[in-house]
Parts: sequence; structure tokens; C-alpha cells
Amino acid sequence: MSSSERTPDPTRRSERSRRSILSAAFELVSEVGYGKLTIEAIAARAGVGKQTIYRWWPSKGAVVLDAFLARGESEQGEIRLPDTGDIEADLKAVLRPTVEELKDPRYDVPFRALLIEAQTDPTLTAQIVERLLEPQMEATRERLRSARRAGQLAGDADLDVAVELLFGPLYHRWLLRTAPLTERYADTVVELALRALRPAGRD
Amino acid sequence: MSSSERTPDPTRRSERSRRSILSAAFELVSEVGYGKLTIEAIAARAGVGKQTIYRWWPSKGAVVLDAFLARGESEQGEIRLPDTGDIEADLKAVLRPTVEELKDPRYDVPFRALLIEAQTDPTLTAQIVERLLEPQMEATRERLRSARRAGQLAGDADLDVAVELLFGPLYHRWLLRTAPLTERYADTVVELALRALRPAGRD
Repeated sequence: MSSSERTPDPTRRSERSRRSILSAAFELVSEVGYGKLTIEAIAARAGVGKQTIYRWWPSKGAVVLDAFLARGESEQGEIRLPDTGDIEADLKAVLRPTVEELKDPRYDVPFRALLIEAQTDPTLTAQIVERLLEPQMEATRERLRSARRAGQLAGDADLDVAVELLFGPLYHRWLLRTAPLTERYADTVVELALRALRPAGRD
Repeated sequence: MSSSERTPDPTRRSERSRRSILSAAFELVSEVGYGKLTIEAIAARAGVGKQTIYRWWPSKGAVVLDAFLARGESEQGEIRLPDTGDIEADLKAVLRPTVEELKDPRYDVPFRALLIEAQTDPTLTAQIVERLLEPQMEATRERLRSARRAGQLAGDADLDVAVELLFGPLYHRWLLRTAPLTERYADTVVELALRALRPAGRD
């Protein structure tokens, strides 16, 4: 038995508080909407003092972003795309759940709110890109790299643009509401993007 | 000489007021930002009563949207893409100026603000899609249709998805700030989208 199990562990207690705050934020943003969400309400639901939240997060947006990311941690661990050898199937296996998530009010409402906040808060924007969007894009890029090594994509395919060719049309339809966002749409986007990226002469 | 030229014309006077209001809104939103823009300030700058604005527009968002659209009217007339026979050049001739516009603070600030408003105002969203985005997308679709008729695109190319494959990656990078938005990026998006849409076996 290590000494840390015999004495109270402040790190562990902090971690419990952190998790309570993030769960409370995630639940509340769905219940009351982002605009009406307050740090006071999050503190009350989490059973902590308001000052605890202010000590760890600079803004409401920062708490909600962490609440989002904490969801990801518990559900997915590190982001990694399947690699079955079939690049089309593997990309569809990522874009379809992304569509489902964007349509799920538990994600749609707070994620939209975060992106609204980000438009006028450059620090939050940078955090969203670095911690929420980039890991997903990098995992996708990694899967595309593997397909390129296998000769399934053109050797000179620009993978930075490729990932935005995949996610861009999804976010465009979701954020601008140009038309209904469906799994069929995600599939078509994958199929078109792959035609764009395959080696010359192969369709 | 028709009788309408001899008597004061209330329609024409209204049209003058409308134009003054829209110019004032467009100028002010760049000067003070969307958040601090007020109907009062627009009325004062346009030299009209506040009530005139409230009579014609239901919300600040609606005035700013019309200010945006009025810009388009005077600068472009009906939206129509060039048709030189070279689909790649013609699409680049549209996406490059779109990038420039999105980066120009005179457009970036109010357009971003409109899209923020739209996230919580379904009527404004529908208006933005119908009056601002859809005309541009339909003009692009029309140019793609012409290329398809000329055998430059696959006969079964889904042109509704195709336009979002072109604009989606632009808006993705602009709204989510994943990386710098450049003309080179717009060109690469056009080149990739066209590879996706060309007839099988042609690259």
C-alpha cells in the first residue's frame, strides 16, 4: 500500500471537482442553452464554489469547451480512425457519426454556441482548433497518409486540403443550414473527395 | 412626359430612404462592429426616423442582411459566372474573389455577425440561405451544368453536393480558422473538386 492511499489526496479531490464541473456544464448547456448558462448554475449543480471555477477557467466558453473535450475523452480515448485497408469505408465510418453528432441536440446546441463565442474570442478560437478540431483532422490525415502509402491515393495529394474537403462540406451544411445534413450526404462527400485524391487514371 | 414625372413620387422617395438606411448600416457595422450597432445610429446616419426602419425591417439582423445584399446588387447585378469554356478558370475566377471578400474586414465583420445571429434566429437563417448564399450557389451550379453538357463533368455528377464541395472548404477555413485562407487554397479546392467531378478515366 503506497503512502498516497493512506493520506487524503488533494490531486484526486481536484480531479473529482473538475469532472463534476464539466459534467454539470455539459448537462446545463443542453438544458438551458448557452446564453442562459451561468457560472453560478454550474457551481451549484457541481457542488463547488463559484471561485473554484473562476480559478481554473477564464470564461464560460472555456468551461464549455473543456466539457466537450471531457466527453470525447471518456467515450473515445485518443482519436484514431479505423484502418481496415478500405479507405472509403473507414472515412465513412468517421463522417457518418460526425453527422449524427452534429444533429444530436446534446452536441449541436453547445458546439454551435462555442463557435459563436469563438468568432469574437481569438483565444477560444485557437483552443477550439487546437484541442477539438485539429485532433480529429490529424487522425483523418494520418489515415489518408496510410492510404497514400498503400498507393490508394495520389503521391502528391495535399492532405491538409483533403481533410477540409471532407469536413468542410459537412460543417458548411450544418452551420449555414443550406440543406438537410444526412448520412447519405456524408457518403457522397467521401466518394467525391476520394475521386479527387486517387492516383491519375484510377476511378 | 408621363404624369409620374410631374408629381412628387413617394415610391422614389422611399427608395432613396431605403438606400440611405442600407448604406448607413453597411458603413456603421464596419465602424462600430455588429454588437454595438443600433437602429438609432443607423437612423441618425441615414437622416430618417427610427420608426421608418422599424416599419421596414423586423430586426437589426434583417437590416444588415439587406445592406449586404444591396452591395451585391450595385456591384454585380444578377449573379452569373463567366463561361469561357474553361470550367477550371471560371470557377477560380469566382472562388478567388470570394476569398478576398471573406478576408476584407468590410465584409468579414458584418458577415460573421450575421451568421452568428442566424444561429439563434431561424427566420434570418432562411433569409441568408435564400437571398445571399443560394443565388451564388445556383449561379455556380448553372456553370457546372453547362460544363456537364459540354462533357467536361461526369453525366451523373451530383451538382448540389458539388457546390458545397467548392464553397464548404472555404467557409470551413474562414469560420473555424483552421489555417490561413489564401487564393492558393481556393485554387487547390477548385482543382480537387474538378478531379472529383470529371468523367471516369479523365484527369
